[in-house]
Amino acid sequence: MTAHAAARVGDGVDAIDTPALVIDLDAMERNLATMAAFAQARGLQLRPHAKMHKSAAIARLQMRAGAVGMCVQKVGEAEALADAGVTDLYISNEVIDPRKLARVAALAGRVTLAIAVDSAPGVERLAHALKAAGTTLAVFVEVDVGHGRCGVAPTAASALAHQVVAHGLRFAGLQAYHGRAQHLRSPAERAAAIRHAVTQVRAAQAGITSAGIRCPLVTGAGSGSFALEAASGVYGELQCGSYLFMDRDYADNEPAPDAPRFEHALFVKSQVMSRGASHAVVDAGHKAHAIDSGLPRVWQRDLKFSNGGDEHGILMPMHAGAPLPDLGETVWLVPGHCDPTVNLHDHYIAVRGGLQAGVVEAVWPIDARGRLT
Amino acid sequence: MTAHAAARVGDGVDAIDTPALVIDLDAMERNLATMAAFAQARGLQLRPHAKMHKSAAIARLQMRAGAVGMCVQKVGEAEALADAGVTDLYISNEVIDPRKLARVAALAGRVTLAIAVDSAPGVERLAHALKAAGTTLAVFVEVDVGHGRCGVAPTAASALAHQVVAHGLRFAGLQAYHGRAQHLRSPAERAAAIRHAVTQVRAAQAGITSAGIRCPLVTGAGSGSFALEAASGVYGELQCGSYLFMDRDYADNEPAPDAPRFEHALFVKSQVMSRGASHAVVDAGHKAHAIDSGLPRVWQRDLKFSNGGDEHGILMPMHAGAPLPDLGETVWLVPGHCDPTVNLHDHYIAVRGGLQAGVVEAVWPIDARGRLT
Repeated sequence: MTAHAAARVGDGVDAIDTPALVIDLDAMERNLATMAAFAQARGLQLRPHAKMHKSAAIARLQMRAGAVGMCVQKVGEAEALADAGVTDLYISNEVIDPRKLARVAALAGRVTLAIAVDSAPGVERLAHALKAAGTTLAVFVEVDVGHGRCGVAPTAASALAHQVVAHGLRFAGLQAYHGRAQHLRSPAERAAAIRHAVTQVRAAQAGITSAGIRCPLVTGAGSGSFALEAASGVYGELQCGSYLFMDRDYADNEPAPDAPRFEHALFVKSQVMSRGASHAVVDAGHKAHAIDSGLPRVWQRDLKFSNGGDEHGILMPMHAGAPLPDLGETVWLVPGHCDPTVNLHDHYIAVRGGLQAGVVEAVWPIDARGRLT
Repeated sequence: MTAHAAARVGDGVDAIDTPALVIDLDAMERNLATMAAFAQARGLQLRPHAKMHKSAAIARLQMRAGAVGMCVQKVGEAEALADAGVTDLYISNEVIDPRKLARVAALAGRVTLAIAVDSAPGVERLAHALKAAGTTLAVFVEVDVGHGRCGVAPTAASALAHQVVAHGLRFAGLQAYHGRAQHLRSPAERAAAIRHAVTQVRAAQAGITSAGIRCPLVTGAGSGSFALEAASGVYGELQCGSYLFMDRDYADNEPAPDAPRFEHALFVKSQVMSRGASHAVVDAGHKAHAIDSGLPRVWQRDLKFSNGGDEHGILMPMHAGAPLPDLGETVWLVPGHCDPTVNLHDHYIAVRGGLQAGVVEAVWPIDARGRLT
């Protein structure tokens, strides 16, 4: 499983081949503890999103720190984590395809499972698949709280909740995630977006309650806005994922004064493979780090990263006089977006003792990498 | 190896799970034949770039159609293809790290191997690794012909060629690839870029020849410009890769009137998983197709694809009255950029008989996927 990993347990940081996906374990554990303490202090459930890390080893660390289970986005992610021993999973996304729903129904027979719905045909097909398999699960109705992607209008939530209950399934509450709110740069913009989300949630709750159905839980929130959902009084569960690693794009948010801070804990180790008179080329391009949310930041060096294509990155001095790295020199990159960056790699190289002089403590497979279906 | 593939051999197209990376074999074979005939008619070697498809099965089809061997960009790609039986490989990229060079030297003992260099320390380290392993290979000196990434100035090529020869290694010629030229939209811009490249190549050749060293081969060219390199009289080998699959970005080039045309042969099969009043959501986001060169195009539907994040794509009518697809309906996407899209998937689902009613003829592993080091 680790045949092509960039390092082995016990290697020094210098011996990690490049490009490689490296976790600073000390930083990650501080992030883990900060979020766990935040949720616990507010009496909220934490169900971190494993679409981000896709790793059973990391899921187990999160569970040990108090998480109630894991969110996933794909049936294949749920299966991969279940195969690796994670027993409480929520597919926070719609599944429509009957063959996928047969897999969902089978999985419901071996782990505690929940899923999101946002259409009447979706509920029908889900109920049909569960009936055929003789299994059951919990169902959240997704409300579009401002993202404009999946989810129903608040006024339509009660009809779906009713349909869920009519099929004898457990209605677990509302899926209410506002993805776009996470990356609004100013705290004021994020606060306005989550105020809107909370209004939508309350409207959906009111409709459901007045139809005589109990709405046990509202689940949502991400690493850019969770303090707002937590303070809202309506959310009972936080789904944050990126807090564990942080990426350049989240770090570009202007922080809210009262929200917990997180450190960069995920890096791509790269190496200079070519030197020009005024630029250096590293061996990490966008097959090694995702660029959907912009380019990586060079860690603790006055160097600007430019896109050098699939396999290369181009470094130039940030200001006159900033030295260029030498041929063979290590350069650490902070990815623009952690989720799709993780999805490019087969292994985490987990380092204890920092990026300068640390030692590889673990090599973790990225169990659900590429599980798209 | 195909445990999590989206289909099995013999399945109908309808049974392919989503999202999946699907090859239209009939279109691919026409592309394969067109490029093979083009190179053969001009007496040029074709050494297609496997950084694009990362597949031994496809490499074998290309070899059978007359390719002399394969290009790769990473040592790990070379190892993966060698393990799968490809015996003539050229690493068209610089390798500086001593541990990687030890792998290169070992690989040189089991396949016909070549590599690119662009620095004196690079040649020294390479020669050292080969001496230690008791193996040898052919060396191309990379000249920067306009891309501004790796490669030396034409005037510096002869010193490196001399150094290669002095180490008893075979100097094979010049690596002269102009990546940026591939995606200049007008034929006139591409022609100007390749005219510049040819000038640089001639200058490097003149320096090498006047130093008394023979320069056997100039290798380079990509799918956007190869007809120009082919007509230049200086290039002896074409490295095109994307011609086999074509992507949205290459299709956006204004074609040169006299250059061969290629068809889209690579698709992401997706499925509508959520429907709003004025949009549909498919289950393919940028974990299923790379967006470094822009978003995918919806195939043969008047629908515009918008970025819906890692796991979702948002479809809207291209014009008033264009119908939205129903929940569960299949939507075919033409990826923006084939190389990094392929690198997201573990398998090709190869279909015979077209996307409407075809049958899965093969499921090919993407052998070198994620081989970053």
